[in-house]
Amino acid sequence: MLNNKQWLVLNNCEFRLKVNSKEWFSDFRYLIGIMTGTSADGVDISLGKFSGSKLQEFTAELVEFQSFEFQASLKKLIELAIKNEARTREIAKLNFDLAYFFAKCVRSFLRKAKFPLKKLDAVAVHGQTVWHQPKSNNLGKNGFTLQLVSLSALTQLLKVPVVGDFRSKDVAVGGEGAPLVPIFDYNFLFSRKCDVITINIGGIANITYLPKDGKLSDVVAFDTGPGNTWIDGAMRILFGRNYDKDGETAKKGKLNKILLEKLKSNPFVAKAPPKSTGREEFSEKELRQIIKFCNENSIEDVDIVTTLTHFTAWSIAENIKRFANPNANIIVSGGGARNLFLLQLLKEYIQQNSSFEFKIFEPPEAKESFAFAFLGYLRMGGIASNIPNVTGVRESISLGIIAT
Amino acid sequence: MLNNKQWLVLNNCEFRLKVNSKEWFSDFRYLIGIMTGTSADGVDISLGKFSGSKLQEFTAELVEFQSFEFQASLKKLIELAIKNEARTREIAKLNFDLAYFFAKCVRSFLRKAKFPLKKLDAVAVHGQTVWHQPKSNNLGKNGFTLQLVSLSALTQLLKVPVVGDFRSKDVAVGGEGAPLVPIFDYNFLFSRKCDVITINIGGIANITYLPKDGKLSDVVAFDTGPGNTWIDGAMRILFGRNYDKDGETAKKGKLNKILLEKLKSNPFVAKAPPKSTGREEFSEKELRQIIKFCNENSIEDVDIVTTLTHFTAWSIAENIKRFANPNANIIVSGGGARNLFLLQLLKEYIQQNSSFEFKIFEPPEAKESFAFAFLGYLRMGGIASNIPNVTGVRESISLGIIAT
Repeated sequence: MLNNKQWLVLNNCEFRLKVNSKEWFSDFRYLIGIMTGTSADGVDISLGKFSGSKLQEFTAELVEFQSFEFQASLKKLIELAIKNEARTREIAKLNFDLAYFFAKCVRSFLRKAKFPLKKLDAVAVHGQTVWHQPKSNNLGKNGFTLQLVSLSALTQLLKVPVVGDFRSKDVAVGGEGAPLVPIFDYNFLFSRKCDVITINIGGIANITYLPKDGKLSDVVAFDTGPGNTWIDGAMRILFGRNYDKDGETAKKGKLNKILLEKLKSNPFVAKAPPKSTGREEFSEKELRQIIKFCNENSIEDVDIVTTLTHFTAWSIAENIKRFANPNANIIVSGGGARNLFLLQLLKEYIQQNSSFEFKIFEPPEAKESFAFAFLGYLRMGGIASNIPNVTGVRESISLGIIAT
Repeated sequence: MLNNKQWLVLNNCEFRLKVNSKEWFSDFRYLIGIMTGTSADGVDISLGKFSGSKLQEFTAELVEFQSFEFQASLKKLIELAIKNEARTREIAKLNFDLAYFFAKCVRSFLRKAKFPLKKLDAVAVHGQTVWHQPKSNNLGKNGFTLQLVSLSALTQLLKVPVVGDFRSKDVAVGGEGAPLVPIFDYNFLFSRKCDVITINIGGIANITYLPKDGKLSDVVAFDTGPGNTWIDGAMRILFGRNYDKDGETAKKGKLNKILLEKLKSNPFVAKAPPKSTGREEFSEKELRQIIKFCNENSIEDVDIVTTLTHFTAWSIAENIKRFANPNANIIVSGGGARNLFLLQLLKEYIQQNSSFEFKIFEPPEAKESFAFAFLGYLRMGGIASNIPNVTGVRESISLGIIAT
């Protein structure tokens, strides 16, 4: 090289990548999980305490949970991005704005929990999905997915290791990159005595089917279709409210059979797993076409909400009947678990034998952020967290990357 | 937790984050550096061999260099993104397409170099800048920057640690996030006997000023304005060619003084460092307005190229005179170093005392990718690589994150 007469190294930067799996598993670990779903209504944050490194050794404790609403400007930018209307500059801005916002939320969360930042081992962040198009949805061409939040910015702002971008590795080798919560279900919601199905009703709904005493390769998990997305959307468009509190609006209306049959023709529900979807398929644009159809056919607004709730419940139940076991113990989570009318319809559509349990994960909104804290725990320890036959890949992958 | 009766850990995933600084610095390390500039014409790949961990201990050897052209579809998508015309889906696709393409290039590069992938310690990738708006360019609001390529996808495809996203941490704490090559210059192009200025003429031009025998805090480095971007753009628009080979077109034309004075009124040139710019400021849109002005004033096409070349040389020289030292030894790199007419003008505008040297880095295109391989080496070892008074932050930061 030219003139390499003087050299330099800076000594004031500690080596922050000092984690190794032996050290990592030598103690309890505290991780924050940050989840933002396709509903784009806010951020769920869980603080989890984890231990264990091997079969039958993991423990998980939910220490604290809190939700934060997005500021209006941030919500607007997310909506724009999800609708494929954000441009380069807006995507770049959103990627950083989420980091600035999450850093603020984490600090506020920890203050409230009276938990010092220094005691935190890592932050696991799902990021805001603004696009998800795995190979299977891309006519066999290379897949791609985008969960926004700058991991570099977040780790720099918090000075804590940040684990994120959990879906990309799986998508890069042809997988669905979803669902990812099944590894949590398999470890913490499994039973030796009976089959278990976990249902998470977020913007999109998904299930994990855990046959009793089954192996990892027996786990079946997939998205079933819409969760709250169309119900929330209809409430916003028709009633100016963000969601149908306790399902009270839907309860008041009548089921419109013509509309329900029309909705049932959606091909996603009958598609065999592995499958995943998002707000690209169950979009506000499509919802507006449904509402237009209803207006043209004089279907009342309240009946639209009722029928969309029926469709949502039916699509979950139909998937359970086709691809799982309607006579399993059921554990429901996600914001949709607070829609009592939806739960009632779900039970009816499943036509479950009354000897089986129908439980709610408490608090229902905490499950996904808690699960991603666990995925972060696994990544920090270098343990695989995808389930190959769930995401449809050959490789076991320790999902996510660690920013430090 | 509910039913946590069975537990699982997957054993077939090696712990890939085993790097620690002591181990890292115990041997020579081979890193690939991948650079894509704002010209979006292709990818430069360098293979570097590095050692050392302390002042006066670093060594760097350029083992191999090769450039790859972008496929037309990829180039089109990049252009769209840089022009702020890409939408969410296109950004998500580009992020992954770059990973698929880079993985292919790296494999082809290593085959040609007869260097086994297994011997490679890491890949350092700059990523395609599609937006760069640090705090200083955002009227004091939070800054943001976006270098596209999915680090997760790339590490999954190559099964090698991938270091990337070098600019975000610095931008997140209010810095310019640029320029980042000065740490390379300070280590390998420094002299005890005389001042040195390195000039890199890529799409944008930047300089590093290394006062003789200076400390790190004496380094001055910043973008000077356009490099090849407007010359290349004018060649494309006016002559249907990608660039002005050896500066032959510019050499044929006449300098138009009215146009030159108009161009000189650009406020960026006179702005005091730290400063950075990109194709947001020196855009094709602005170039088209310049060309429109020229057409209205009957300035001939060839004279436009000549005058843009003058402006480019002048803006670099003017920055050197104002903020550095015109009587330093000069080392030019980047594709622009092959524009002989530009170099000739540069010498004239600097009006350098003939006792000083004017060298070309060989090969000139390799410098930035080689420098980013070095930045990757520093990140793997946990050593800081920003220069606080260059990027305008208080903290020393080990730039980049490591995806494994």
